[in-house]
Amino acid sequence: MSAPWITYRPNLKILDCTIRDGGLINEHGFDDEFVRAVYDACVAAGIDYMEVGYKASKKLFARDKFGAWKFCDEDDLRRIVGDNPTPLKLAAMADAAKSDWRTDILPKRDSVLDMIRVAFYANQVPEAVDMIRDAADKGYEVSANLMAASTVTDTEMDQVLEVIAQTPASTLVVVDSYGSMYAEQVERLVKKYLEFGKATGKEVGIHAHNNQQLAFANTIEAIIHGAERADASMAGLGRGAGNCPMELLIGFLRNPKFRIRPVYQVVEERLLPLSRTVEWGPYAQYVITGQLNQHPRVAIAARSGEARDRYAEFYDKLTGEEV
Amino acid sequence: MSAPWITYRPNLKILDCTIRDGGLINEHGFDDEFVRAVYDACVAAGIDYMEVGYKASKKLFARDKFGAWKFCDEDDLRRIVGDNPTPLKLAAMADAAKSDWRTDILPKRDSVLDMIRVAFYANQVPEAVDMIRDAADKGYEVSANLMAASTVTDTEMDQVLEVIAQTPASTLVVVDSYGSMYAEQVERLVKKYLEFGKATGKEVGIHAHNNQQLAFANTIEAIIHGAERADASMAGLGRGAGNCPMELLIGFLRNPKFRIRPVYQVVEERLLPLSRTVEWGPYAQYVITGQLNQHPRVAIAARSGEARDRYAEFYDKLTGEEV
Repeated sequence: MSAPWITYRPNLKILDCTIRDGGLINEHGFDDEFVRAVYDACVAAGIDYMEVGYKASKKLFARDKFGAWKFCDEDDLRRIVGDNPTPLKLAAMADAAKSDWRTDILPKRDSVLDMIRVAFYANQVPEAVDMIRDAADKGYEVSANLMAASTVTDTEMDQVLEVIAQTPASTLVVVDSYGSMYAEQVERLVKKYLEFGKATGKEVGIHAHNNQQLAFANTIEAIIHGAERADASMAGLGRGAGNCPMELLIGFLRNPKFRIRPVYQVVEERLLPLSRTVEWGPYAQYVITGQLNQHPRVAIAARSGEARDRYAEFYDKLTGEEV
Repeated sequence: MSAPWITYRPNLKILDCTIRDGGLINEHGFDDEFVRAVYDACVAAGIDYMEVGYKASKKLFARDKFGAWKFCDEDDLRRIVGDNPTPLKLAAMADAAKSDWRTDILPKRDSVLDMIRVAFYANQVPEAVDMIRDAADKGYEVSANLMAASTVTDTEMDQVLEVIAQTPASTLVVVDSYGSMYAEQVERLVKKYLEFGKATGKEVGIHAHNNQQLAFANTIEAIIHGAERADASMAGLGRGAGNCPMELLIGFLRNPKFRIRPVYQVVEERLLPLSRTVEWGPYAQYVITGQLNQHPRVAIAARSGEARDRYAEFYDKLTGEEV
């Protein structure tokens, strides 16, 4: 499972979540050219999976208020990838309580998707189990992504993992939704997920957020301790502080199947222009919510308003310190 | 030396290098108000040392081409800090081959400085030894900062450390000048420096650059493995990709003597406005030189020219890959 510095782990697989997580900052409104450029870059870079968006409920989310990648309808997918005649596998995420998964996730034989990633909070385990079974029965590879793991107590975590370990999900992902974890916590969770998943042969993945500029470091840490799946995004695009930057991750990995130049190219041609109209990255408000182990929503709100440059005031608001 | 997660290491000392390392991006041209604001923030935040600049040779560097913090004349220092009636200690850096240290570093009794940090490359050890002895003889606390440690072979490193260990320097700093190190390398070097410094009671420090967004992570790693001194700068200000951001480091440390709010305040009031006129941070070119373990000077040049947004071309240039 581990490997010395100079060699590499042949089974380590990378998932690009640029469009899925990045869609959270622009209502999933990427145009086709952008999505195709990321897809082409993933193929050229030897990336294993590309997560193209959500399977979100059209009853909860109006079709005309969000871009296509909130829903990942088959027609939209195929407009970009055709039948996807490449080694790159395609994934979509379904959130517990926010997806009409029974109907909206088609049988695998009718879809160009390869994997469904089921995202859920600790209190949503019963629905998550049903979602995982449903997707597996339909023929998909399935990943179980317990969100906000940094807020789950040890006892509750054990109970969640015991239940999820019995499902047909083949991957359990350590998700640092708030970007609050330090290396020690990542190590402990990766080892715990591996332990619970061992009996049913599950792999462990890592999905890190960059609030404290630790997304890449924590991803390395997870890999060192046995994670075989790692999420990253082009230029770190993602909600709030963003994710582990793909250009950093591929620079670290030694597997010659990965190529970094296509990543720099898409970063230059697509992400850099995008950064002039929307923002992501470890701005002070995201640092603060990360340090406080909180959801970034208050930071996102602060950065979109007039007080965006008033860091100390934001800190006071969240900590209740008097000035 | 180590401490459990929830407590803290009382001996761990932080050095703010905002003005010294940051001066490398504006020819040390900070105005007095800026320097005073950083000084006040350091005092209010409980930071242990502030590095105010260089003791650079006026024969090599024209006095009218650089700001005061390239030279740290006593009058300039005292204009900001008076007699420095605070617990904050003041440091200046002297580079081997670039400093008239014999004459320009005054006896400690005539200076408001407390520490001299001697910076040198592996091939400059003989002069570094003389500089360290001179500064110690003059009454200063002295730190030995071997630069570009990531390019020094193991054999050469042992020889350097054996010699430096015999000097009166009380601190040996692991310096990742190129921002190329991963956690394993930091661990190995910290342990090695500690081993060589043990007999003469030297402490070990860490000075990290942020090319791969690992400056904070590597600083934590160094602390975990026994470093008792850590460098950081407000908003990570520093040459090229910058340094470990102070707001991240203080957020991690548990010692109640440190206060984070003054850091956010100076970041908001001084660093944010500065970022509109000069740039620093982990831009793609710095990532690339970091990944290639190279000096950032080519990246700095690329970012100041017309090709600043052409990442793939820069990558090709440095790796010789044909497009």
